[in-house]
Amino acid sequence: MKNQLLFTTVICLLFNFSQAQQSDFESDSIFLDKLFKTSLTNGKSYEWLSYMTNKIGSRLSGSLGAERAVEWGKNTLQGLKLDKVWLQDVMVPKWVRGTSEFAYIDSGGGTTNVVPIAALGGSVSTPPDGIKARVVEVQNFEELEKIGKDSIQGKIVFYNRPMKPDVIETFSAYSGAVNQRTQGAAEAAKYGAVGVIVRSMTHSLSDVPHTGTMSYGALALNKRIPAAAISTNGAELLSAMCKLNPKILFYFKQNSKNLGDVLSYNVIGEIKGSQFPNEIIVVGGHLDSWDLGDGAHDDGAGIVQSIEVLRLFKMLGYKPKRTIRAVLFMNEENGLRGGKKYAEVAKQKDENHIFGLESDAGGFTPRGFSFAATDSQFKRISAWKPLFTPYLADSFTKGGGGADIGPLKTDKNVLAGLRPDSQRYFDIHHTASDVIGAVNKRELELGAAAMASLIYLIDQYGIN
Amino acid sequence: MKNQLLFTTVICLLFNFSQAQQSDFESDSIFLDKLFKTSLTNGKSYEWLSYMTNKIGSRLSGSLGAERAVEWGKNTLQGLKLDKVWLQDVMVPKWVRGTSEFAYIDSGGGTTNVVPIAALGGSVSTPPDGIKARVVEVQNFEELEKIGKDSIQGKIVFYNRPMKPDVIETFSAYSGAVNQRTQGAAEAAKYGAVGVIVRSMTHSLSDVPHTGTMSYGALALNKRIPAAAISTNGAELLSAMCKLNPKILFYFKQNSKNLGDVLSYNVIGEIKGSQFPNEIIVVGGHLDSWDLGDGAHDDGAGIVQSIEVLRLFKMLGYKPKRTIRAVLFMNEENGLRGGKKYAEVAKQKDENHIFGLESDAGGFTPRGFSFAATDSQFKRISAWKPLFTPYLADSFTKGGGGADIGPLKTDKNVLAGLRPDSQRYFDIHHTASDVIGAVNKRELELGAAAMASLIYLIDQYGIN
Repeated sequence: MKNQLLFTTVICLLFNFSQAQQSDFESDSIFLDKLFKTSLTNGKSYEWLSYMTNKIGSRLSGSLGAERAVEWGKNTLQGLKLDKVWLQDVMVPKWVRGTSEFAYIDSGGGTTNVVPIAALGGSVSTPPDGIKARVVEVQNFEELEKIGKDSIQGKIVFYNRPMKPDVIETFSAYSGAVNQRTQGAAEAAKYGAVGVIVRSMTHSLSDVPHTGTMSYGALALNKRIPAAAISTNGAELLSAMCKLNPKILFYFKQNSKNLGDVLSYNVIGEIKGSQFPNEIIVVGGHLDSWDLGDGAHDDGAGIVQSIEVLRLFKMLGYKPKRTIRAVLFMNEENGLRGGKKYAEVAKQKDENHIFGLESDAGGFTPRGFSFAATDSQFKRISAWKPLFTPYLADSFTKGGGGADIGPLKTDKNVLAGLRPDSQRYFDIHHTASDVIGAVNKRELELGAAAMASLIYLIDQYGIN
Repeated sequence: MKNQLLFTTVICLLFNFSQAQQSDFESDSIFLDKLFKTSLTNGKSYEWLSYMTNKIGSRLSGSLGAERAVEWGKNTLQGLKLDKVWLQDVMVPKWVRGTSEFAYIDSGGGTTNVVPIAALGGSVSTPPDGIKARVVEVQNFEELEKIGKDSIQGKIVFYNRPMKPDVIETFSAYSGAVNQRTQGAAEAAKYGAVGVIVRSMTHSLSDVPHTGTMSYGALALNKRIPAAAISTNGAELLSAMCKLNPKILFYFKQNSKNLGDVLSYNVIGEIKGSQFPNEIIVVGGHLDSWDLGDGAHDDGAGIVQSIEVLRLFKMLGYKPKRTIRAVLFMNEENGLRGGKKYAEVAKQKDENHIFGLESDAGGFTPRGFSFAATDSQFKRISAWKPLFTPYLADSFTKGGGGADIGPLKTDKNVLAGLRPDSQRYFDIHHTASDVIGAVNKRELELGAAAMASLIYLIDQYGIN
């Protein structure tokens, strides 16, 4: 009897629960359908991206392009008639590439092979006449240590560990290879290397070098050595030639410079919450890009998608319960100053950021989201997955949100990252090929709609 | 007490079941991991596709390209040291485009706008001097009927219904628009139209016309009118100009021809099953393509992926229980003769095809599969979904398999189609842009591995 009662109670509870779910599910799925339909039929994201890439172009921190992007971002947000639009001062590092880099392999007897390189962001210049030296090829820092100072002194260290092709999620493969680029020069300098050449961070074999940030850490100014990325085809050639003849020489010349900090801005627009105005939801991407290409996927896509979230809400007459902010962060690529500043000011003002969503993984077909959240928060959010199934964007995983929103993390709030299909991203990442022709309009619009859907659900139901 | 016993029994059953599942799941997931890793690190699919597209090129039924593709397919399958490789005779229609088409809008006073068109596959030629006539723009056949013979007679019918942008799965949008292309000429001819111009089947606005098959049905030879696709930008222009001035004239000229049937082949390779050799599993795509472009996605991708399935099994030393055949079907695009012939011969020989898998939706990131199956078969197969989750290819839906394998359907067997991400497919479908540059190596390889995984599971566990 006791068992029967328990059984009946459980059944009743389940039934009520599923009833309650049902009703929300229906109205929510109707609203999500509207968001997707509107983004696909009446979206602005692609038109905006076309402006950002073709009319502004690259937007490296401290550049004229970045300045113009700030102006454009402000005007675009103002055009949406939000409750408030403002700029937030951020001091950003200004690094310039200077004139085009030049590099070749000298295999003796007058035989040279020109190879494509690009100075890494933050790298110092070579001497005006460039550097010519023998090459030590390594896969990682352990190998560097094993080879030792005597064999490295006066040479160019060539990091040639490819991104692993058998990792499904390409960002994981990137994480597993990128320390060669970020710390390679600082490490090689310890052993007396005179320069560093790094295999481009991509799976694909191509002639396009991929730039990206690097850091000398605490290395003294006079110990800093220049570092450049070489295209993967160039890396394959250099490696093959080193194996044939370890005495070949590598020449490269670049005149990049660090010019100190300059003033720039985060651009922020918000719709005030009607019920819980002090609970803030952030949606954003980064306004800056590398100087090669037009930063179409990285992160023009994230910027226009974030603005589109607010525009979709306005267009559909949706009045959020909580305060929703689009934040166009400055300087993600080489300093993260925008993200840090935003979090710092939020803390000063004692603002309660309950949720942050970043799109900084390309404007490709959305597959889902990753969440930095507690188990119970993640479980609660995962209950919404079926709402995303019709759009094939229902892969919800635990993981990071995004670099810019990272500094906002507390042990109470939730951060999320849009997870688009990642297979093509590193074909164009940080290269001259990151242009709007590499972005598919529908994929971009689907991403914006998926983001708006998640923000809507968070706004409706909170995070706990 | 009775309840308790029942409860305990249920728990025990569940436990045993999950134990049994667990063990299979583990070994299966290990094998799937091998398939994916091998495809991504040691795959041949991209290299083969490069050969097919760059060394052979387009492969329209009856063309030299198709002949060379048959030869290449046979040699490639033979290179895998399968148990048997053979050609199957198929009579295919031979249609040729002839010299390049030419079209312009004549808005009077000497003002003309040249627009890009492509004759539809199967269309008759215009008269040698072309056709020049007034234009009737319609969205569908109902509108045609409403306008009526008096207003259509002697004019060119311009079908301009776009593919719906707010349908998530682009193939559904395609299905909803394609009757304009396939039956447009036959319908318009009934009302005395002299020619047909069809908006290209794509969401994107571009200058590239999309060809594709059309049929006159039972229409008498002397009633047949020429039909061509116009690029979407051309369609937008033509529509705008018709609205400004309904009296504008459209001119087009093409000299396409139907040359009757010629001999071609399906190419087939098989690994004999070790336990159930009479249970046949087919994996395939179509070897023919349209004559514009190189048929890289449509369906070079499906061909190389299907061959790769067998190669992966050979390479990993997997000995299938059931007979597995790769079938490179001829003439999917404009006749489906290969698919029909294969099924006809299978029936004659009383062969038992328990399962067929086709890849003919592009070489993009695999999202999952659609299945033509009974509810219980689908339920059983759906239990494997978690095995595909690590590869984000776990969207299993009910639906069709593929055109070529369609004729194999019985009420007992299961047919399946690989479902890649569909957002970009109609940017390049049936155009000069369907070249290998539009194919991402990793996406192609992931598709091949997903196919091999499904075939492996069917081979291991059957379909019932």
